[in-house]
Amino acid sequence: MNGFDLSADTARGALASLHGDESAEAARERYAIAVWCQLIEPGDSVAGRVIAARGPVAALEAVLAGGPVPEVTARELAEGRKRWLPRLSARAVDASLATAAARGVALVTRSDPSWPSQLDDLGPHAPLCLWVRGDVAALRRFEASVAIVGARAASRYGDHVAMELAAELAAGGIAVVSGGAYGIDGAAHRATLATGGLTAALLAGGADRSYPAGHTQLIDDIAQSGVVASEVPCGSAPTKWRFLQRNRLIAALATATVVVEAGWRSGSLNTAGHAAALSRPLGAVPGPITSATSAGTHRLIREYGAQCITSADDVRELLGLAPRTDAVTGVDAGRTGEATRVRDAMSTRSWRQSTDIARRAGMAADAVEAILGLLRLEGSVETGAEGWRLRTAAG
Amino acid sequence: MNGFDLSADTARGALASLHGDESAEAARERYAIAVWCQLIEPGDSVAGRVIAARGPVAALEAVLAGGPVPEVTARELAEGRKRWLPRLSARAVDASLATAAARGVALVTRSDPSWPSQLDDLGPHAPLCLWVRGDVAALRRFEASVAIVGARAASRYGDHVAMELAAELAAGGIAVVSGGAYGIDGAAHRATLATGGLTAALLAGGADRSYPAGHTQLIDDIAQSGVVASEVPCGSAPTKWRFLQRNRLIAALATATVVVEAGWRSGSLNTAGHAAALSRPLGAVPGPITSATSAGTHRLIREYGAQCITSADDVRELLGLAPRTDAVTGVDAGRTGEATRVRDAMSTRSWRQSTDIARRAGMAADAVEAILGLLRLEGSVETGAEGWRLRTAAG
Repeated sequence: MNGFDLSADTARGALASLHGDESAEAARERYAIAVWCQLIEPGDSVAGRVIAARGPVAALEAVLAGGPVPEVTARELAEGRKRWLPRLSARAVDASLATAAARGVALVTRSDPSWPSQLDDLGPHAPLCLWVRGDVAALRRFEASVAIVGARAASRYGDHVAMELAAELAAGGIAVVSGGAYGIDGAAHRATLATGGLTAALLAGGADRSYPAGHTQLIDDIAQSGVVASEVPCGSAPTKWRFLQRNRLIAALATATVVVEAGWRSGSLNTAGHAAALSRPLGAVPGPITSATSAGTHRLIREYGAQCITSADDVRELLGLAPRTDAVTGVDAGRTGEATRVRDAMSTRSWRQSTDIARRAGMAADAVEAILGLLRLEGSVETGAEGWRLRTAAG
Repeated sequence: MNGFDLSADTARGALASLHGDESAEAARERYAIAVWCQLIEPGDSVAGRVIAARGPVAALEAVLAGGPVPEVTARELAEGRKRWLPRLSARAVDASLATAAARGVALVTRSDPSWPSQLDDLGPHAPLCLWVRGDVAALRRFEASVAIVGARAASRYGDHVAMELAAELAAGGIAVVSGGAYGIDGAAHRATLATGGLTAALLAGGADRSYPAGHTQLIDDIAQSGVVASEVPCGSAPTKWRFLQRNRLIAALATATVVVEAGWRSGSLNTAGHAAALSRPLGAVPGPITSATSAGTHRLIREYGAQCITSADDVRELLGLAPRTDAVTGVDAGRTGEATRVRDAMSTRSWRQSTDIARRAGMAADAVEAILGLLRLEGSVETGAEGWRLRTAAG
């Protein structure tokens, strides 16, 4: 057993100030997860498979015992042990748990009722747990949520759009997920808080650390009403690898991901990639083609099938929700009414000249022609030698 | 015959200063087309079908004679006569031909070698002829061309983008089609001329009239090296109907149409509709979602499948041409190289961990992971429980 103590007493002692009221078995399991967190880097699928097959305690015992583990190949296990065992330290685990307790960071595992089950869509790459500051129960309220992410070096345009989208969506009851970074992330979090909405910041380092330092106050504010979470234990530094892996958590927690601004090689494209890999809807906000901070979003639209997002209602559509706009006013209403009048003046059987349609609709011929052009684009009418007619559903 | 004289002598007399050296038959045909131009509004498909079936002379004789015309229904013919005959005036035809001769406007018909045959894709809505100021032979050089169109009330961003796109495309030998209007159209024409490229302005009124008046100099400049054309005879006013019909000529003459800026209900959407109806490639330039002048282009991208255009190379791709960028430099080159290294380090048969791929590629693991994310988005690699592998063409 490599001398490592996985007894219920040890587990209960280490978890005393964090989760003091658990059964012996539950305490051992939670403690083993805390140990695993110390051993692995995020997204370690070998560890993920062993733990999924055996549970965290038996998986840890098997790895420590050194014998074969049928769920993975001998080579995977050997390489895994090389990665994991040098990090084995009861003291480090105790320290991370003590920090968690001191900083009000809860350890939420898959067995806990507040576990956001959409994270399990990551399969063997799913996180073992989340270290959570804030309202643990709110984790379940991200089932209708949107990730609003983008460049740290955002333009004023990007900041503005991120704030507008987040505020409008949050006001409509949609939770906003982001990464707590400068730029787009910060703008999305701030606007959500300002609207009284629910927001989660998923961090690359420990949930006890505010990163970036300049966002200490913002991250504290998020923890006040929402959730600050990480899969790495307290005290962990936000390495580049952990940033990339954190991006998969953002994509997995949210129902859909929207990239507001991104450079050609922005890390947000990595988040977008995770969303696409998870078959989550993906949106991107266009911007001036002269702006480097929109090059990545245009790339997502052009090359990766991201939806072009121009409003909060477009995001709601991405989420499969109805538009929130209560009253259709102005230009839209006018256009809808006119299009209806034109359709009413048409037939699925008879071809009609646009002048005839104009007469029947009581509209100017050129207005009718313009609307016919749009309806043709939509595919709801067709034109032929003898004029125009409505297309049938089959046609 | 309604007293109207369609004899060769009359035709030759009327055409003397315009096309003086034609055979009797050719002169009668050209004259009959000039008469038809006086009788019909653009896009009159009843006239189009009668003329397509019988030729312009016999079609005109049949209509004037008053008997049945088998190619159209009795009702269509009766309504057509009601539209056409009140406009019958040899004096008006002579006046338009005299103006054409005086202003250097040629009458180009389908029988002429310079006729741009792509206009015939409009079928019964194809124009009977073009009245052309400028280099008539250049009409054939629009076989690889792009229509750059958009809002009259363009923003500085729109003007800038229209100029950049037109200049870069024109420098690459692609002709630029537009409508001679203020805003996007004017910017596209000007930049093309400045680059020494070929441009055509298709006008809604007569080719002898410069519309808008503020573009008199620009339209003269276009006629100097390129083409100013219209399907309506000299002296015709640019009515709203003719603007909408002119849009179909822009879409039909050009290989592809790109809308640079457009409001939600812009007339450019009508041009886009014609391009789509003709199955011509359609592109739209994104812009700030906060800009009303980009609402129409975003609509084309979101709802009508327009390609998102961010550069002249994107337009070339729309036209089915190779990118013109000679040397791939900077970020792109770096990325391509890295992606190649990552692919080289992968296998279609064996799954490999990203760390293994990083080692084989001699690259940092997090850089590899970021590239794997992008390659996954592209669909060229896949990830599973045991890591990553290249997808085969079949898979």
